[in-house]
Amino acid sequence: MVIVMNKQATDQDIQSLKQAIEELGMQVHISKGEERTIVGLIGNKRNVEGFPFTSFSGVESVVHVTHPFKLASLDFHPDPTVIDVGGVKIGGGNFVVMAGPCSVESREQLMESALAVKETGAQILRGGAFKPRTSPYAFNGLGEEGLKILAEAREVTGLKIVTELMDLENLELVAQYTDIIQIGARNMQNFSLLRELGRVDKPVMLKRGLSATIEEWLMAAEYVLSGGNQNVILCERGIRTFETATRNTLDLNAVPVVRRLSHLPVIVDPSHGTGVSAYVPAMSKAGVAVGSDGLMIEMHPNPAKALSDGAQSLTIPQFSQLMREIKVLANAVGLQMA
Amino acid sequence: MVIVMNKQATDQDIQSLKQAIEELGMQVHISKGEERTIVGLIGNKRNVEGFPFTSFSGVESVVHVTHPFKLASLDFHPDPTVIDVGGVKIGGGNFVVMAGPCSVESREQLMESALAVKETGAQILRGGAFKPRTSPYAFNGLGEEGLKILAEAREVTGLKIVTELMDLENLELVAQYTDIIQIGARNMQNFSLLRELGRVDKPVMLKRGLSATIEEWLMAAEYVLSGGNQNVILCERGIRTFETATRNTLDLNAVPVVRRLSHLPVIVDPSHGTGVSAYVPAMSKAGVAVGSDGLMIEMHPNPAKALSDGAQSLTIPQFSQLMREIKVLANAVGLQMA
Amino acid sequence: MVIVMNKQATDQDIQSLKQAIEELGMQVHISKGEERTIVGLIGNKRNVEGFPFTSFSGVESVVHVTHPFKLASLDFHPDPTVIDVGGVKIGGGNFVVMAGPCSVESREQLMESALAVKETGAQILRGGAFKPRTSPYAFNGLGEEGLKILAEAREVTGLKIVTELMDLENLELVAQYTDIIQIGARNMQNFSLLRELGRVDKPVMLKRGLSATIEEWLMAAEYVLSGGNQNVILCERGIRTFETATRNTLDLNAVPVVRRLSHLPVIVDPSHGTGVSAYVPAMSKAGVAVGSDGLMIEMHPNPAKALSDGAQSLTIPQFSQLMREIKVLANAVGLQMA
Amino acid sequence: MVIVMNKQATDQDIQSLKQAIEELGMQVHISKGEERTIVGLIGNKRNVEGFPFTSFSGVESVVHVTHPFKLASLDFHPDPTVIDVGGVKIGGGNFVVMAGPCSVESREQLMESALAVKETGAQILRGGAFKPRTSPYAFNGLGEEGLKILAEAREVTGLKIVTELMDLENLELVAQYTDIIQIGARNMQNFSLLRELGRVDKPVMLKRGLSATIEEWLMAAEYVLSGGNQNVILCERGIRTFETATRNTLDLNAVPVVRRLSHLPVIVDPSHGTGVSAYVPAMSKAGVAVGSDGLMIEMHPNPAKALSDGAQSLTIPQFSQLMREIKVLANAVGLQMA
Repeated sequence: MVIVMNKQATDQDIQSLKQAIEELGMQVHISKGEERTIVGLIGNKRNVEGFPFTSFSGVESVVHVTHPFKLASLDFHPDPTVIDVGGVKIGGGNFVVMAGPCSVESREQLMESALAVKETGAQILRGGAFKPRTSPYAFNGLGEEGLKILAEAREVTGLKIVTELMDLENLELVAQYTDIIQIGARNMQNFSLLRELGRVDKPVMLKRGLSATIEEWLMAAEYVLSGGNQNVILCERGIRTFETATRNTLDLNAVPVVRRLSHLPVIVDPSHGTGVSAYVPAMSKAGVAVGSDGLMIEMHPNPAKALSDGAQSLTIPQFSQLMREIKVLANAVGLQMA
Repeated sequence: MVIVMNKQATDQDIQSLKQAIEELGMQVHISKGEERTIVGLIGNKRNVEGFPFTSFSGVESVVHVTHPFKLASLDFHPDPTVIDVGGVKIGGGNFVVMAGPCSVESREQLMESALAVKETGAQILRGGAFKPRTSPYAFNGLGEEGLKILAEAREVTGLKIVTELMDLENLELVAQYTDIIQIGARNMQNFSLLRELGRVDKPVMLKRGLSATIEEWLMAAEYVLSGGNQNVILCERGIRTFETATRNTLDLNAVPVVRRLSHLPVIVDPSHGTGVSAYVPAMSKAGVAVGSDGLMIEMHPNPAKALSDGAQSLTIPQFSQLMREIKVLANAVGLQMA
Repeated sequence: MVIVMNKQATDQDIQSLKQAIEELGMQVHISKGEERTIVGLIGNKRNVEGFPFTSFSGVESVVHVTHPFKLASLDFHPDPTVIDVGGVKIGGGNFVVMAGPCSVESREQLMESALAVKETGAQILRGGAFKPRTSPYAFNGLGEEGLKILAEAREVTGLKIVTELMDLENLELVAQYTDIIQIGARNMQNFSLLRELGRVDKPVMLKRGLSATIEEWLMAAEYVLSGGNQNVILCERGIRTFETATRNTLDLNAVPVVRRLSHLPVIVDPSHGTGVSAYVPAMSKAGVAVGSDGLMIEMHPNPAKALSDGAQSLTIPQFSQLMREIKVLANAVGLQMA
Repeated sequence: MVIVMNKQATDQDIQSLKQAIEELGMQVHISKGEERTIVGLIGNKRNVEGFPFTSFSGVESVVHVTHPFKLASLDFHPDPTVIDVGGVKIGGGNFVVMAGPCSVESREQLMESALAVKETGAQILRGGAFKPRTSPYAFNGLGEEGLKILAEAREVTGLKIVTELMDLENLELVAQYTDIIQIGARNMQNFSLLRELGRVDKPVMLKRGLSATIEEWLMAAEYVLSGGNQNVILCERGIRTFETATRNTLDLNAVPVVRRLSHLPVIVDPSHGTGVSAYVPAMSKAGVAVGSDGLMIEMHPNPAKALSDGAQSLTIPQFSQLMREIKVLANAVGLQMA
């Protein structure tokens, strides 16, 4: 951490600041430049986390020179984390596809989807039983009934399951059925929920918040990791920008940025990322080439009858075609795919 | 709702769409333009909420011509809502100031703050007992101990209390102590929590999410309203933009926009909105002149020792000075202030 | 400037960097922290402007601790700049209103507008003769004919004139007629144009770009100042964010931020800032209370017939009413208004 | 175009609006819904471009149902445009790579770069002779000297040249040397310049503005097309968002969106798009897989000595390695590459 003094800062200001820092158990390095004096802090920065240096007289700004996450960082864990979901490996050069409908709507709809997913060679089935919806009047999922249908599809197909958890109330219930607990973008900074996930013995897939910086996303992962759960999968699903041609702006740049900062696997969701099924194939292929650890893709036996997100769902034939193209690409970039 | 067909749409496409809409219990109006055919839907749009029209052949886009919120709208409730918090009126031409430290840190710190708030003529005391923090390692509040200190300060000063609720687990606990339940920006779309707040007999102050559109914010309010709790106060606290000179971009435009759409009172929080105490006075005054129903301002007896958000907290003398200026302005724009 | 080394940086990396910096004529201060080594640069940073430190082995990031503008800064010029436009003072506690139609459409329309502006006590008449339009097919102004009409209105009313310059070709022509040269948001980083404006003997009003940070805006002003023209007026006119309820997001936070960084006067344009006439009165009043040096407001004798921006133009009676409210507010906050 | 009336709109309001529309030579379709009346306009919408319908009594909003661009649209020109740059084809399934240093700094630096570019099989050499710089004090290019060096490199290598034009003053000069005229992001809405480019007999590569929607970008292309120059190449180079881990957010979603709207070729620039050389390889590969028509990549013989943008430049060996990977990918997705 570096503290920049303003031009009017007096020697007295600098001394007061120095003393306060030393009282926090850190050392101080002072550099007097031509225009500004800079105060460097040396020692364990945990001690000064959130300390209001800008309230001191003469301080212009505080500059953080290291990232605030620790367990999520490559410094702490230099090799890529590989998560084993009942035999399906996520991370470390493996490439997984998670696919299925936005919501579980009925046994029939889900089973038809699951069989199609299985047929293409994808390994993980997605489907929402609890749905966060912008409107209180919209369909919000089948609840436990949906979880049971997912579990049945797992029995029949051998696919692993990922489904969303919306709140602490349903944590035990969801954990009982699913293989991966998905945390949605709107809950990325639901800190009460994140803390509890640190105590769960299931992998957590943490979607990036709509306006979360990559650093905040990794700090949200840090909540789970610091609770003791080392199995965190990141999922880029589009950020909010000024552009309205897409529902969100899928930020593929996040993949190489995460790679440079963290050991956690990162999945790309082009369905929510664009919100338009016509853009999903192109962005899926880009998601492979960019070097992610997998894709999460929405498909539906009949998008025109979907109860949620039909506009971004591929049909079964579209999804099958895309899977063929994904395999060619994964092969071309040297990724292993089941 | 209006559906725009693409240039390649056939008569068959239009007929299929028409039939689907009629099956949903709505009527159809077809306008054939030179370049595009437009299909208008007439009837109760609740029936078609989320229906995936864009998955139909020949459909280019779907345009929503009415807002999705109902109970929050001026159409439904043309007069401004006035919320009575134990005698303190919020909305309808009254102007309230809520002030206090970011976090309750100790009995001494909070009592000193409360007395200063009382002295200036502000009516509501703020202070966090449960704190959402980006880092799992940061101070996250005193919990129930903090609530008890707040309640004691209410006893002593007669001020009303507003404090944040972070999760369902603590709903009963927080509701037992506070006069207004604050929902933070990161929880604005915590739908499980919003639903439950609809059943509570306490006013809810709903902060706007960092990347929430005004429409989404009103839809979040709709969750609470549709649950039966009519006492929702909106709070603009800054949105996330590309600008980094301020921590957030306080969006005062939201005040006149909300006025044109909704009857709910709207409060402005310049402390979180800017994140820098030096900008709080100017933005507070702008918040009065723009026609809001009140301000929420962070102050601290000693910002340099604050455990959270010291950088955006005013000192007691700065706050007192600002209150004098606010009163002059409120008077100038015809608002009533206690 | 501070250079942060990564964890893997070797002593050799640090020495190579040190040598490169010293060759640039600067001194080096090295602080070895527990996790990172930090290299501080001391001396005239002009020497290292744009130097690619991040290409050196072992460098993690470069942190700028001072602002890159000089002539625009308070450090260089601690007192507020006051610009004299033929007797009308802008800056330093004076409050000016610039008003008029978006475009000069006809002699009749402009004269009617000018007389109304004069009547309310505003001092500067706006009106576009050259109009930047998103569509090549839209009305793009009367050109020199428009400038002549503006000059005639000045003769008749005694108002000063501000009008937009779009390109170097018309610089002499526009400068010959106008009192203030307006540079539009889309030209804020038209560096060829900015350089030339540094050589002109007319005040320049520089609108903030749609996605310009405040620092970039001040750097654009620096282009003009460094060319020798000290008369630069900044104009906040809304930035682009995710919110679509307003055409732009008027960023009033920019006013106190500019005050803390620069001596240049800053004007607020609520018409472009919101794009909706219904929001202009509230945001104008906020623009006074926030402490700006003036407002630029679009009005039109008949907005429903306007050739551009009718949706954001006030009618003459609306504008007159607003001017009365502005005067009350300016008085309440201690600003001088003619 | 569809006009939505508000709930309070009277029959008289609707009649007045209808009459105004008919006077503009268009027909009117009125749909009375339960909550809102909707007025559809039929006919040539050029007549109503910019008409201020929202200023009419009873009007709530105006909804554009067709895109405002015409010559740039697939409706007008259903087949992909293929641009022939002296034998190098851009668009229509060909994949080109443009590479070279940010700025032409010296004959030696440029020739070394050009030979390396040629060696890898890339076909077009980039290099700036006129540089837009945020700071007036930074290196801003060699001017005509730089153009001459580029022309010499073309002679020697047979590569085609692309270089930036910043202003009308240098249009003739730049056109005389270059094969493709590049228009930078900050000039995307420099309408005076765009108009003039419509009259030039050279391909124009139009970079997307930092905060330009895809629609605005296509409207900027429309300026050039409507002037008579059909050879417009689009270039996605990153947009401005809240994320600061990358200099810009390269928006690859723009590629499939442009494909669905326009026939113009679209190039991806991962160097400016990310601003960090470490992210360029991943985003380049994503740019191939997403289906663009080519890449523009910055490389430099010695990035640590570059006078501009060293931080985002690849070294020659890095670039050569990346070219090998690009070829594998282009082949895998069925693109032709020289």
